[in-house]
Amino acid sequence: MKTIDVCLSPDLMHLYRVDDRKVVIVDILRATSCMVTALAHGVAAIKPFAKLDDCLAMKAEGYYTAGERNGEKVDGFDFGNSPFEYMDPKLKGERIAFTTTNGTQAIARSEGAKEIIIGSFLNLSSVTHYLKEGSDNVLVVCAAWKGKVNLEDTLFAGALVELMKESIEPDCDAPLAAQRLYNLARYDMVDFLKDSSHVKRLNRLNIHKDIQFCLTPDQYDVVPRLINGSLII
Amino acid sequence: MKTIDVCLSPDLMHLYRVDDRKVVIVDILRATSCMVTALAHGVAAIKPFAKLDDCLAMKAEGYYTAGERNGEKVDGFDFGNSPFEYMDPKLKGERIAFTTTNGTQAIARSEGAKEIIIGSFLNLSSVTHYLKEGSDNVLVVCAAWKGKVNLEDTLFAGALVELMKESIEPDCDAPLAAQRLYNLARYDMVDFLKDSSHVKRLNRLNIHKDIQFCLTPDQYDVVPRLINGSLII
Repeated sequence: MKTIDVCLSPDLMHLYRVDDRKVVIVDILRATSCMVTALAHGVAAIKPFAKLDDCLAMKAEGYYTAGERNGEKVDGFDFGNSPFEYMDPKLKGERIAFTTTNGTQAIARSEGAKEIIIGSFLNLSSVTHYLKEGSDNVLVVCAAWKGKVNLEDTLFAGALVELMKESIEPDCDAPLAAQRLYNLARYDMVDFLKDSSHVKRLNRLNIHKDIQFCLTPDQYDVVPRLINGSLII
Repeated sequence: MKTIDVCLSPDLMHLYRVDDRKVVIVDILRATSCMVTALAHGVAAIKPFAKLDDCLAMKAEGYYTAGERNGEKVDGFDFGNSPFEYMDPKLKGERIAFTTTNGTQAIARSEGAKEIIIGSFLNLSSVTHYLKEGSDNVLVVCAAWKGKVNLEDTLFAGALVELMKESIEPDCDAPLAAQRLYNLARYDMVDFLKDSSHVKRLNRLNIHKDIQFCLTPDQYDVVPRLINGSLII
């Protein structure tokens, strides 16, 4: 039977093998939720960058620039980090260069994986279906907050473990912990997360609507995959 | 108000400040449970070592040598890693050099802390009382398993957060996650942990009695502190 493991922080990536498995990157608030939304609404490709300057440089190549640092839009960028921005029809067929405090860092740290895909509650069932179909082991990489474990990414990891428990076995304790937290939270995730550090941080930025949307399962039937450095569906 | 934070793995220690706070080292199965048991039963001092050779060398200085690697007693050591061994009356007044796969590594990684103390369910109330009395912030350092987050140490961290919630505020999400897991597990921790990786590992070594004992709160009224490189009460 194949296994699923959960890396609760990119700073623990050295403990996990990736070359033989599918890696699911998750940054619920809000990087991977934005990526899924953008690609579902017709964006052609998203090129993730760990470094701000590298991202900004892509303007010269006809990319829109997008993302955040510490939760806020970057000066000179075309788009910020709210999923609602990525529903804009003018983005259809366009390419976006994207960098965020945590999400795109987690992608960079997963280099060498057999495959990298993007997960969020918005495409939870599609991701689950895709992982169940394949024969590869799975590693869920939580983007966390500057290395510190967060609740919302852990809940998503737990949701995947819960949904795949018949076909995939948890490896080690992190998937078990995540699964139990998800089962505790699943019927009201907004309420469960109200004391979490990032929700508090984002509420100060007045984006409660974003949080609510990012915690809504199955809005889109897409599985973004990293191919030659770009996320496509 | 002072704060409590939880470091779920020694491999995340670089994210936490320790010089201004009390650090609680926890390795429920079984290093810190053994240390608490030994000191409560009259052992004079325990000197923790990260490296096996350094530990073994202490024999020449009249120390008993003790500990494990991968859950099993080390060849040439006087004692293993079962708390029941440390109730031996011949250990009264003696000094022990101790090394384990995870617990003594977590102590080594916490160097520079304002104070290092040893926590386990066996001395849960004493540790809680001690931390409540002081004015320092608190960091609980889970020993984990070779860097990977484990459930039993997380539950202990959660118990401390739960017991101190009136006088101390959780900092970031790890304490919240730990607290919620503890509240889910608290009425039958043995059952809650039955699928955990280390309990499975230890069950293969036939030490179910150890697990049961290590999960029993408040057997001893001691707070081991690290003073000049030795744990004393």
